[in-house]
This record gives sequence, C-alpha cells and structure tokens, in this order.
Amino acid sequence: MTVPKDCEDLKAEIIAQGDIVRKLKENKNAPEAEKNAAIEKLKQLKVLYKEITGQEYDGGARKINKKEKNKAEKVSDESKQSRNQGDVKKQTKLGIDVSKDENYSDWYSQVITKSEMIEYYDVSGCYVLRPWSYAIWEIIQDWFDSEIKKLGVKNCYFPMFVSQGALEREKTHIADFAPEVAWVTKAGQSDMAEPVAIRPTSETVMYPSYAKWVQSHRDLPIRLNQWCNVVRWEFKHPTPFLRTREFLWQEGHTAFQTASEAEKEVFQILNLYAKVYTDLLAIPVVKGRKTEKEKFAGGVFTTTVEAYVPVNGRSIQGATSHHLGQNFSKMFDISFEEPDKGGKAYAWQNSWGISTRTIGAVIMIHGDDSGLVLPPRVAAVQMIVVPVGVTAQTSEDQRKALMEKATEITSLLVDAGIRAESDLRENYSPGWKFNHWELKGVPVRVEIGPRDIANNQVTCVIRLSSEKRAIPISRLAEASKKMLDEIHERMYNKILEVRDKHRKLCMNWEEFKDLLDRKFILLVPFCGRIECEDTIKKESTREESTEIGAAAMGAKSLCIPLEQPADPLPAKCIHPSCMAKPRFFTLFGRSY
Amino acid sequence: MTVPKDCEDLKAEIIAQGDIVRKLKENKNAPEAEKNAAIEKLKQLKVLYKEITGQEYDGGARKINKKEKNKAEKVSDESKQSRNQGDVKKQTKLGIDVSKDENYSDWYSQVITKSEMIEYYDVSGCYVLRPWSYAIWEIIQDWFDSEIKKLGVKNCYFPMFVSQGALEREKTHIADFAPEVAWVTKAGQSDMAEPVAIRPTSETVMYPSYAKWVQSHRDLPIRLNQWCNVVRWEFKHPTPFLRTREFLWQEGHTAFQTASEAEKEVFQILNLYAKVYTDLLAIPVVKGRKTEKEKFAGGVFTTTVEAYVPVNGRSIQGATSHHLGQNFSKMFDISFEEPDKGGKAYAWQNSWGISTRTIGAVIMIHGDDSGLVLPPRVAAVQMIVVPVGVTAQTSEDQRKALMEKATEITSLLVDAGIRAESDLRENYSPGWKFNHWELKGVPVRVEIGPRDIANNQVTCVIRLSSEKRAIPISRLAEASKKMLDEIHERMYNKILEVRDKHRKLCMNWEEFKDLLDRKFILLVPFCGRIECEDTIKKESTREESTEIGAAAMGAKSLCIPLEQPADPLPAKCIHPSCMAKPRFFTLFGRSY
Repeated sequence: MTVPKDCEDLKAEIIAQGDIVRKLKENKNAPEAEKNAAIEKLKQLKVLYKEITGQEYDGGARKINKKEKNKAEKVSDESKQSRNQGDVKKQTKLGIDVSKDENYSDWYSQVITKSEMIEYYDVSGCYVLRPWSYAIWEIIQDWFDSEIKKLGVKNCYFPMFVSQGALEREKTHIADFAPEVAWVTKAGQSDMAEPVAIRPTSETVMYPSYAKWVQSHRDLPIRLNQWCNVVRWEFKHPTPFLRTREFLWQEGHTAFQTASEAEKEVFQILNLYAKVYTDLLAIPVVKGRKTEKEKFAGGVFTTTVEAYVPVNGRSIQGATSHHLGQNFSKMFDISFEEPDKGGKAYAWQNSWGISTRTIGAVIMIHGDDSGLVLPPRVAAVQMIVVPVGVTAQTSEDQRKALMEKATEITSLLVDAGIRAESDLRENYSPGWKFNHWELKGVPVRVEIGPRDIANNQVTCVIRLSSEKRAIPISRLAEASKKMLDEIHERMYNKILEVRDKHRKLCMNWEEFKDLLDRKFILLVPFCGRIECEDTIKKESTREESTEIGAAAMGAKSLCIPLEQPADPLPAKCIHPSCMAKPRFFTLFGRSY
Repeated sequence: MTVPKDCEDLKAEIIAQGDIVRKLKENKNAPEAEKNAAIEKLKQLKVLYKEITGQEYDGGARKINKKEKNKAEKVSDESKQSRNQGDVKKQTKLGIDVSKDENYSDWYSQVITKSEMIEYYDVSGCYVLRPWSYAIWEIIQDWFDSEIKKLGVKNCYFPMFVSQGALEREKTHIADFAPEVAWVTKAGQSDMAEPVAIRPTSETVMYPSYAKWVQSHRDLPIRLNQWCNVVRWEFKHPTPFLRTREFLWQEGHTAFQTASEAEKEVFQILNLYAKVYTDLLAIPVVKGRKTEKEKFAGGVFTTTVEAYVPVNGRSIQGATSHHLGQNFSKMFDISFEEPDKGGKAYAWQNSWGISTRTIGAVIMIHGDDSGLVLPPRVAAVQMIVVPVGVTAQTSEDQRKALMEKATEITSLLVDAGIRAESDLRENYSPGWKFNHWELKGVPVRVEIGPRDIANNQVTCVIRLSSEKRAIPISRLAEASKKMLDEIHERMYNKILEVRDKHRKLCMNWEEFKDLLDRKFILLVPFCGRIECEDTIKKESTREESTEIGAAAMGAKSLCIPLEQPADPLPAKCIHPSCMAKPRFFTLFGRSY
C-alpha cells in the first residue's frame, strides 16, 4: 500500500520522536517524567498516523533516510532562495522529476502541487483548491447548471447540519454513512445539548421539508439542486480530489408523482454527466447500472458513468444518478392523495451528484511526464502567448514592438471568445515560461518572435503532441477555435483507444485474473448476487504489485453497461464456484 | 424582547410539559420515577429554550393560550385539506394577516414563509433557503463575481475545517470569534485525536498557505475569493437571513506589497458592495469606516455600507471591507525580501465579505402589508403573465386562444431578456394568482384577457404602487425594460426619502435620545473612544418599546461616513460626560 505524500512529514516526525525516546531510554540519568512524556508523544503521533492512513505505522519497512530528508529540505531552501536571484536555477527545479509510469504516486503529488492546483493543509484529508483547479470546477458548474435549469431544476440551499433524528430515519442509508459522519458537539467552550452531524449527503436534510411541501399531486414534481460542500470522515488514506474528507459537489433531489417520470429523469441526468466527461473533459465513459452490492444505500437503483485510467488500469466512478423509489418518501412521509383513485400515495424520488473528483480524473487520465495536459474546454487558460527571440542585439524599440504585438494577439484571441493570456514577464526566460505553462497543461502555446512579426504569423505549439504550427495572424482566430476542438477530439480518442484495447469480453475466470493484472477491465457474465461479487473481489486480490504498475486490490463490479454486448449470455456466471445463472454482462475491474 | 417565531413550538411544548409535571405532583399515587423523569424533561426543554433564545424561559409573561394553539393547528390542517379540494379556501388563507407596522416580527415570519423564501428547520438557527430567495443570491453572485474578476481576483476553495493551532494564531481575532466557534470532536463513533473547528471566517485557514506562496515581491499581489458557507454558533436569538448559525457569503482575501495598493482595494471593493445595494437591491447606503469598537477583530480599519430600515428605524450593516495591515502577515509570516533595500518585509492584507443577509435587507426594507416587493434586478421572476376574463360564457376556442396569447407574450418578454413566466394553471382563479404573485413580490403582473387581445394590448400592474398601465403589445418589450428600470428608481427613491427624513445632524444628547426613539439615525460629533461609545450605548437603552414600534436596544455607532458634513466640528463630543475632543461626525443608531 502506498502511503500518501502528505504523510511523509508525519513519518519523519515519528522517526525523530523515536530517536528521542531511544536516547532517553539509553540515558540512565534522564528524568522519568521527561521519558514518559516523550513516549506519550510518540504514541500520539502513531495514533494520528493510523487515523490518517488507516494502517499501523510500520517503522521498519519504509524508514525515511534522514540524511536524504535533510538534503531534500536544503534543496527546497535553495529553490526558495534561487527565486529571489534569477532564472537559471528555476529552470532546473521547475519540472516533474519522476515518470508517470514508473512512480505514479509521486508523479501525482508533484503534478498537483507544482502545477498549482493543490496546496496541502494541516487538517488531514483536506486540501486547498487553488484557482488553477477551481477554474475547472467553475466551468463544469456553469455548463451543468445551465443544462439542469433547462430541465426545470432550481437551485436552493439547505443547512449543512443534520439532527440525529433526521439523519437516522432511513436505516439502510444511515448504516452506510454512519462510520464517516462528523459530529459537532461543542460551541465555544460549551458542550451542545444535542450534537449535530455534518451532511455526508442531503437526503435526510431535505426530505422533511419535501414532506411539508407536498400536500397534493399538484405540488409535484419538486426538482431542486444545490452546489455545496459535504463531509465524509473516511479513515482510508486520503488522496487530493479522489478521496478527501470534505469535497464540493452538486446534489439534485427530485420527487415525482409517478415512477416513470422519476426513472426518465435518472437517465436524463446520467446523460448530462456522460457529457461532462466526453464533451468537456475529453474522457470516454461507460454508462451503466450499479450492482446490488455497489448501489446507493437506501435507493432502488444507481446509474453511473465509469472512466478508465490507463496508467494503472483502474476505473473511476465519474458521477451517479440514483432512483430512490419510494423508500425515502415512505420514511419521511412525502405523500399526497391519489388524484383519481383517492387513498394515500408516496412520491417517487431521485438524487444525483457530481463532485470535484472530476478534476482528479482529468489529471490522472490526461497528464504526462511533463505535467498536466488540460482538455481545452475546461482549461482556465486555453492559449498562452509568449514573446520569444529577444537577444542582446534586440533594440529597445524592437522589444517594445514585440510586447505590443503579443498583447494585440492576445486581445484578438480573447475577442474571438478564447480564454487567452500573455506572459510578458521580463525576469523569466522563454524557456522557463515554456516549461511553466507545459507543466500547467495549457493546451496551446503561441510563440511570437521578430521573425514571426516579419512574416505576419505566430507559431502555435500543441501541448498534447508538441507539434508546431505556423499560422498567419489573419487566420489565427478561426484556426485557433478549430485547433482547440481538434485537440479535444484527439485527447478523447487517445484515451478511447487505450481503453478499448484494455476492455474485453471474458468468460473464463483464469483469464479474468490474468487480464486484470494486465490493466484490463472485463465484461463478464454475472449473476448479480452480493455473495458472488464478494468472492470475486476476494479471489482477485493480489499480494504484491506487478512490474507494470497495476494495482493490487480485488476487482469490483464497475457497472452493468446499459449497452449490453450482442453475444448471448453463457450458461455460467464468471466465478467457477457460482451455481447461479448469469443475468447480464457486467463490467469488472480494479477501481478507485 | 421579541421571541422568534420558531420558538413558539418549543414554548408550547414547555407549557404542555409543565402541565404534565403539575398533574403528576397533584396525583399522590403517581410513581416517583415518572414524576422525576417528567421534571427532568421540563428542565431540558428550558435549557434548550435558553440556548436558542439567549434568555431564561419566562412562563408567566407570554403564556400561549392552549386553546388558541389548538385552533391554529386545526386551521392549518384545514388549509392542508382545502388545497386538495378547490380554490375558495386558498384565497382566504393565502395572504399576510398582520400589518408590517403593527406587528413587525410576525409580519417578517409570515412573509418569508408564505412567499416561499424560507422553510424552518429542526436545527436551531439554521434555515432552508428555497429557490425564491436563493435566486436573489445567485443574481448577486453573478454580478459581484464578474466585477471582482475584472479586478483580477480569482476564485478558489479552502477547507471548512481549521486546526486549533491556526485558528488561535492571531490573538485579538480569536478572542472575538472563540465563543461562537463550532467544534467537530467525533467521527462516526470515535472521538477525534484533535478536534477541528468549522471556519467562522477564513483568515486563519488561508494565511498559512499565503505564507508558503509568498517568497518574493513578485509573488504579490495575491487576490483570492471564495463563495462558501461559514458557521458562527451564536446564542442570541436567531432570525432568518439576519442572524443564522450557518450562512453563505463570499470572502475575498488579498495580500499586497505596499499599504497603498491594499488601501486602494479596500475602497474599490466597498464601492462594489455599495453598488450591490443601490444598483441591484434598490437600497440606499452610507459608506463609512467603523469605529475602534466596531471594527473587525485583528484588522487595522473596517469599511462598511449601512442601510436604513424604515419600519423600526434600525440600521443594518450591509457588507464590510477590512484593511488588515500587517497584523496577520506578521503572525503567519507572509513575508518577502524588500526588492531594493533588502531586509524582510511583510505583506499588506485585506479581507472583505458580503453575505445572504442582503436578502433579509430586501425583505425588511421593501416589503409591505401584502408581502414581498422585490427589486426588479434581483427578482427571479420580473414579470408574471396571467390570463384573465375567462367566464362560463367563454368558448373552448376562445380559452385556448387566450392561453396561446399568454404564452406568446411571455416568449416575447423572455426574448427581450426579461425574466418572465406565465401562470396558466387552470385550478386557480385569477384572483388567487394575483394574491399569490403579489405576496411573492413579482414587480409586474401582466394581465391579458379577451378584450386585451381585441385591442392588441396587455394590462401591466405594478406591484410597488398597484398602478395599472395598458400597453400595446407592439411596444411591450421596450416599455417593459423601461418600466423595470423605472420601478427600480422609484423603490430606491422611496427608501432614500424616508431615510433622509430620519437622518439628522445632532449636537445635543437629550435630542439624540429623543430622536433615536423616533426612529432616527443621527450624525453626531464623536471622540471615537471605546469607553465613550459604551456609555452612549448604555445610556440610550430603553426599557420598553414605544408605540411607534422603534426598537429598545442602545445606540451603536454605524459608521464614520466617508462623506463628512460641511459643518465644523463643535468643541464637545455628543455625550455630556465626555471630556475628549470630537474627532469626526459619526453616524449612530439602533442596529441589527
């Protein structure tokens, strides 16, 4: 199991504290109180470590070489200093110094911090979303918000706090969430009369109000959405964007008079989620239903979009749209009188959400050894204009003309509706800027130099492929829009190709296990039973990681794809010991 | 002191529990355990009451007549039933049944619930923002967000949780917020190793990151903003929008190399806040600085926009923009090397915020006895089209033509960029609809009937004044835009006039107290000292409320207006016992 980057400091602290305790124990004159205090502190650090990582601290296995750590700190100090001095050293410190394929975990940590997407934070499992990542979220929000408004969904805001009574109303639901619920028990110095929970999701927050609002079938449908933070105090090791204790999302909560209206909406929303991935993030997804084991607690069925992560062959759940049936409406009494028949009827409900995990998917799936590769439609900066070719021989007038031209070209692009910026900083070399914007994943760099000016052109460099294109300024606006669309298509197709090479219809258990270790996701005949899925997961777990970097955890069902293969279902479920009949082809794989 | 509406249930429960206890005490055969349990429950209810209202439960003074309560419940049941039956009863239950001037507290509760702005919630001090109020917030967000982005501010998101260490770094700051900080101490069933606080504001959340990011003067300015929720667990009695334990706001946090850059921004932002009030909400404000007593804890100076609430003569703080100087940058070490002189320098910082309190100001200031009156620029629906004149004699074809015309007119308005909707529901009478949309404060109702169709016109009814205008359909789009602007101006001027009639330059303490009780805000010579302000507040507190509905709490300084009167400062401060020289004219009044 890989320990998250942000635990390195804590491990170093544990090691240092261990040294102190050892010395105190060796020293027979050391006061007992001091010794005990040191031991107590060491214990607390280890408890904290376990809380953060979900595992015991294992001092022997991965001890940090203290000399190396000191060296690393020194380098970081130098780098801090060098920024005050000049450009030379910056260039050497700037880039990612590990390969994505060789050390994926370090690569991820370096990319998210060096590209200025994330800042680490002193509350474990919480991270700062810097403007470079938050901008992606804003673009997703804008698009999705306008799409759901077209469907008639309205925004609102419900409290973050839930009373214990409401939280625990639906039993299956709370059973799933209870271990991760954060409780507020104190205000100022006083203990609160009754602790309140922080929402892990808002079904139990919202539905008591829905019950008040629904008196007649005319009060339906209710279609509300909110953009907010939620808290799930997980004890597995946290990863920025992918598993965080607080995250941002939207949650839609709707109630209808009939099941068919509700079910129709589930798939309307699922299609919008698929479009967020395919049309904005350039990521192919499989649309499907979750199995009984994986569905939302308390709901009737869950639909999902699942994306494939080439680097480690894992799949990631992209967003989910749940049909809740009448489970919650019965528990919360969201009811009305049947319009014709008379008698009490309960509303049919859905809930659906997409979160800042989307940003993590973009990073993992598209990034390369030079850093981020941002899909054009969600990049905060789509094109960065960099003046080049200034030498010792360049006159002040020439330099000024170049800067003006760069500004002019940026305006031309902005006026064409492109998110373009220029980098005219004089204390950074063009080479440093190239690396900087490459690391940050800007889709197109626009170079303009004296020779370009003479030829009335610019040189565009595409981040995805490093390809260079000379484009006449007269055609730049139009060509840029096409180029950004083309980049989007190429990014999408690149991932689609890798994924399709790693997706296979599979009827044989031995082949299943073999291909899983070769980063495949597998479409298999499956009975749908929870017990069988547990067995599959257990028996596909590997002890140590393979050379090709595939993960080791057991396979999970990703989804039952809406689009089923044309092949007839065989007589047997994928697991050899299963005697039940397969009910559908189900996509299995290792998963986030 | 008025008890908030949402405590009525609790009071009823206390009374009922009191009855149970009394009966048990009277009954000599009652088991001791049962008696004790009932007494214990009564005690707990009273503790809860005190927690919510900030005062002891006073059973004698405002006992609820139980018969009346039962009657009220019955009526509410009837109303629930009647909605399933027909229109007649709806019309009688719909409106506000108290006058704003006569019973302001009940009026406010009725308006916010009946207009569907707020739903009450089972965690005290927390309320549901329904789409009708949240839409106002969305419009404010859109406008303000685009304005700060023009200034170069970028959005981001920092965690909601703060470690104790960071929270308590700046002593003055934490002293002010500590009593209201909510603490998370448990996750699932486990006590957390270290409790974390929920942000009451994010200075202490953000500035450790700023310290990491600032290495050189070239890393400045940092100009970040976030839209988020914050929590202040107040024990004074809560009021929806105005004093809530969780609320939504934006908080901008910026750091500059020089004091003058920072100070310039403080006023840029203050001007934007003023514009939110004057240009969107049609509310006049006074821009000014807070006194030492009222400024932000830990900051150097606070600027504010203050609005006047005619109904009770109180003032409400609209938004604040703080200059923090170097207080926080020194505590958090946000420092860099001076570019020319060398040596360590600290950043100059600001923070600024506007919250959902804005919505409360709109309700209080513009609402009337018929309900909300929404300023056109923030109304979710600016014009509501209602077909009228359908009688028993109307043919099916005529009815259909009317509905089509209503839809056509709505489209015409929407195409002109107006937020228009039509109310074509057949199970509600036009009269019911008039009341409904009046209560919800829609600025203009557009009536269209068979005679209007014949004349190619519609009848517009203005919510603010009930004025009717016949407008030819050919000119409707253009006329509507002008009409909405005109309504905005009239709403603004109406409040401005009342406010200016209740604002006076005052040099005499007896006159001060007298005018305060007549709902004035007063511009007075003031020394600026905290002790003197404490005396003014104490000595202007009244014991009971006046007939004209003015509040009873002591006067606070609202602000030192940026625009000072031309009159020279007199020799004496407003309070007779103060021997210090007045330093400026300061606006005082009763305040939210």
